[in-house]
Amino acid sequence: MPKKSSKFSEGPVLYGLRQAMQEHGLDAFLIPSQDPHQSEYVADHWQVRRWLTGFTGSAGTAVVTASVAHLWTDSRYFIQAEQQLAGSGFALKKLTVPYTAEYLDWLLDDLPAGATVGCDARLFTVSQARAARRKLAEKDIELAFSNYLIDELWTDRPALPDDPVFELEPKYAGQRRSEKLKAVRSKMKGAGYYLVTALDEIAWLLNIRGNDVECNPVAISYLLLGQESVQWFIDPAKVPAPLQQTLEQDGIDIQPYTGLAKALHEAGAQQPIGYQAEANSVYYYEQLEPECWKKLPNLIAPLKAVRNAVEQANLKAAMRKDGVALLRLYRWLEQALSDRQQPTEFEIGEKLAGFRAEQEGYFGESFPAIVGYAGNGAIVHYRAEAGSAAAVRPEGVLLLDSGGQYREGTTDITRTVALSPVNEDVKDHYTRVLKGYIALSSAVFPDGTTGVQLDILARQHLWAVGLNYGHGTGHGVGHFLNVHEGPQGVTPNPRTSRGQTPIVPGMLTSNEPGFYKAGEYGIRIENLDLCVEKMETDTGKFYTFEPQTLFPIATDLILLPLLTQTERQWLNEYHARVLEELSPLLKGAEQAWLEKKCRAI
Amino acid sequence: MPKKSSKFSEGPVLYGLRQAMQEHGLDAFLIPSQDPHQSEYVADHWQVRRWLTGFTGSAGTAVVTASVAHLWTDSRYFIQAEQQLAGSGFALKKLTVPYTAEYLDWLLDDLPAGATVGCDARLFTVSQARAARRKLAEKDIELAFSNYLIDELWTDRPALPDDPVFELEPKYAGQRRSEKLKAVRSKMKGAGYYLVTALDEIAWLLNIRGNDVECNPVAISYLLLGQESVQWFIDPAKVPAPLQQTLEQDGIDIQPYTGLAKALHEAGAQQPIGYQAEANSVYYYEQLEPECWKKLPNLIAPLKAVRNAVEQANLKAAMRKDGVALLRLYRWLEQALSDRQQPTEFEIGEKLAGFRAEQEGYFGESFPAIVGYAGNGAIVHYRAEAGSAAAVRPEGVLLLDSGGQYREGTTDITRTVALSPVNEDVKDHYTRVLKGYIALSSAVFPDGTTGVQLDILARQHLWAVGLNYGHGTGHGVGHFLNVHEGPQGVTPNPRTSRGQTPIVPGMLTSNEPGFYKAGEYGIRIENLDLCVEKMETDTGKFYTFEPQTLFPIATDLILLPLLTQTERQWLNEYHARVLEELSPLLKGAEQAWLEKKCRAI
Repeated sequence: MPKKSSKFSEGPVLYGLRQAMQEHGLDAFLIPSQDPHQSEYVADHWQVRRWLTGFTGSAGTAVVTASVAHLWTDSRYFIQAEQQLAGSGFALKKLTVPYTAEYLDWLLDDLPAGATVGCDARLFTVSQARAARRKLAEKDIELAFSNYLIDELWTDRPALPDDPVFELEPKYAGQRRSEKLKAVRSKMKGAGYYLVTALDEIAWLLNIRGNDVECNPVAISYLLLGQESVQWFIDPAKVPAPLQQTLEQDGIDIQPYTGLAKALHEAGAQQPIGYQAEANSVYYYEQLEPECWKKLPNLIAPLKAVRNAVEQANLKAAMRKDGVALLRLYRWLEQALSDRQQPTEFEIGEKLAGFRAEQEGYFGESFPAIVGYAGNGAIVHYRAEAGSAAAVRPEGVLLLDSGGQYREGTTDITRTVALSPVNEDVKDHYTRVLKGYIALSSAVFPDGTTGVQLDILARQHLWAVGLNYGHGTGHGVGHFLNVHEGPQGVTPNPRTSRGQTPIVPGMLTSNEPGFYKAGEYGIRIENLDLCVEKMETDTGKFYTFEPQTLFPIATDLILLPLLTQTERQWLNEYHARVLEELSPLLKGAEQAWLEKKCRAI
Repeated sequence: MPKKSSKFSEGPVLYGLRQAMQEHGLDAFLIPSQDPHQSEYVADHWQVRRWLTGFTGSAGTAVVTASVAHLWTDSRYFIQAEQQLAGSGFALKKLTVPYTAEYLDWLLDDLPAGATVGCDARLFTVSQARAARRKLAEKDIELAFSNYLIDELWTDRPALPDDPVFELEPKYAGQRRSEKLKAVRSKMKGAGYYLVTALDEIAWLLNIRGNDVECNPVAISYLLLGQESVQWFIDPAKVPAPLQQTLEQDGIDIQPYTGLAKALHEAGAQQPIGYQAEANSVYYYEQLEPECWKKLPNLIAPLKAVRNAVEQANLKAAMRKDGVALLRLYRWLEQALSDRQQPTEFEIGEKLAGFRAEQEGYFGESFPAIVGYAGNGAIVHYRAEAGSAAAVRPEGVLLLDSGGQYREGTTDITRTVALSPVNEDVKDHYTRVLKGYIALSSAVFPDGTTGVQLDILARQHLWAVGLNYGHGTGHGVGHFLNVHEGPQGVTPNPRTSRGQTPIVPGMLTSNEPGFYKAGEYGIRIENLDLCVEKMETDTGKFYTFEPQTLFPIATDLILLPLLTQTERQWLNEYHARVLEELSPLLKGAEQAWLEKKCRAI
């Protein structure tokens, strides 16, 4: 669609923002997607960019000047953003490189020297603010913090969530909070305190979970860890009395959510506070003198990412439950299609959530299911809506990427199935994706190997014929926590910290190559793979992966001549294991259905 | 061997250095391997570390304090350094991570707060000096520049070389210097000048070559490129009159080697001078105020690395000559062994240089040949010396890594041959190395792919059985220039700029996986592979490699069942090409010999 002039579609919200900018002497205002905790999924209270622009994607930054309103997002969201921005007064700017601050270049071009750009300091990390300032300084443009400008405008802003938190018992967590606190404290080199603002890190550290953010069982809070103290900043009304008591016994001091700034002042006056420039808000950082801070790496993510034995055992239980739920979904779907019903993508997602909910220990979806039928499957982050979802007919290809939160762990699985016989091209693409999955999953690699080195294994068979996929190959997965977590990942980008992090035993990482033919179909195969030790030789330790996800991979889409004997054997062994693990949980006809799907090829 | 006490073996040189350190108020003195041009191969004049310690390896840093003298080097050189340091007063310190400044940690531990560490500023880059200062500041230790301390002690220091330079004619260079100057100038964003201190970059830019450094056809000089001017700082006596005239016509102003500092002052007073913190000496940097400098990336290396059409055509000619020389060497060796002679490794290297010298346009070795027989082949950077080289008998495995400089290009090739039937283990290792070579060489990858992504292809078959090799897989190669050049490379380390540089068509990179069994044998297979365009699809451009090196890869060491059909086909096609390219240059029996070696498997 042609680019809109923002002038003619300026609504009252944008008008109000511009008035406020003028009052505050701001030539531009930045509205990022983040919350003050750098959460991937953001509570409604912090959905400022969505409220302002109408764009619901997970990544994007809005920039407003006196005459222009733009939204930058990456290629995953181009189509969606065009649609959602229509009439909002915002025009889409397409990011060349995802997650970069390309709007800064635009501001440098557009604004006069000496201009002032405003933003809410709570929503920018220390390093983001530093980089922005350095860049804008090229033209003598100032970055000013106007933290409460949006609060004045957003009169019906949703309150912060008030759901209660709960304890993750030792039988699920596998490690006491006292041990975790000790482990982190031992790494606080040169700092008397350590500031934790990431919600999943706080949840892991305290063995608590919450219900504040869609799909993420976390509670909105801050934590300040001292060598002798733990201050947890959370609305005390959210912590049930018995849990308060337990936590107090463990030396956790519960303070109001808004109490962090005061505590930082007190702590910083005594000893340096460890902070992470990439994670903590510049808002808090700038409240103290620089010498009160000590830059530290993330001390929690590397510990959290390595599953302990209890977590590993629990995860296997979660995977069995998830496999049963998926089996029931696909059986229901096959029946529905053969009954000439045409369930919509949205209904399939709802149905699957229902089957998962029947499983004991289920807590909710780990992310909104991606049910992509035919051409919708080619939209990588497609989300079917109740009103507009496509009806699924007994033909073509269906991609289903979904996951559940269980007390025993977090799942994330993608399967692609044919609803009718498909042509050779589809099979060729599917088989190359499968070969990539198998190559990565069965890779043997020495200690120290990083995700950027492994990535090519998943892509090589697509590259060989000039094809590729435009997303990473794998992400870390939390344990009854966020479906995306660091520090590791499998990515083609050597400059990312995820790509540069060695993958070590105990880490759980998705393996999800794909292929997308725009307008026609999407193919993706995803399991969660646990890194395990393979052998130790004179050369050192070697690792490999063990798929944790338990669900058959469609074999009727495979072009058999493209598979090597080794690949066929791998698939047959995987299916034998799926059958063995799931069978004890199945009822009558379900067993026969699974046997058929797991039949050796 | 047990660690020596340096006290009892302090010779007169070390004594003199310590006296001088005392006079200059220095608590420690650093002696790196570098010259002021950051050359890999260093002219005798700059071999300060070798002179002081006796250690001849290419990488290592000596540190002297009042009571201790240490030399840090990496695992390639542990054995050699132990031997060469014996009696020098220096003790070996083993680097955990190659090329890092681990001696700084040692200094922090060893020196008292407030100490002073001296060095020659000419031998440290801006970024090395910055990093050292930042680190030493942790203990209030100062880095002081005592640039001429060694000059006072090294009374018989070799003079700077005075060999004449010569022009590389257009039929070899393929691009006029005026075009190259224009291309670099167009990238000098925000700078009126650009400082070039790397000798190969100056040689490429001016289309000149020299003979100042072993194996590298370069001339010791500096260059200051202005938007309207070119100042070349080189001993004018080294530039023959006709070349001086040609260069003057092209606007090149020849100045004495020592004239750079003055020229920088004049230039910096007018416009910012572009510099590279990783390449330029802190000595020159600190002569001007920081605002006279503008940090720029390396503007020349990316241009130099991409071969033009003339260079590509010439390279093929150089490779044919190199193949013929190698053929004659191996035929001679087979004959010598069957005649019951036992040539030494050193003699084999000399003989090979002789065969290369018979080829037209030959200039010299591109590096000292590595002739590693049996266990010596397992020492990755082994260099056989005349007096101590092993005698080669008709049994076991011989590794030969060598290269030549020709007017048409630089070669670098490794082959491993069996001098008698070998056991299955050797064959298994050899075959895995070969499979790795083929996988990397025949990889198809999209535009933007970097060496760190590709590296695993060469290692995967060794990793599968718990084996590995301790060096990078590939390095860029200059064109009738240095055998190691940037910006690209194939390495497992995602944090290196070589690993992070996309490999694009026209780049020439070695592909050299290996396997080393200490004390028994070394295996390495190396060709130089040119990146070429493979196809363009809707996804974009895809590239692959085309081996340029033309010499058979031993087939009698292959375990055939380990090769796939595709790998056999690749090898047969490569051998057919070798035969086709070399045959026209061979005499009688040579042709029959090559046909046998190139026979299809």
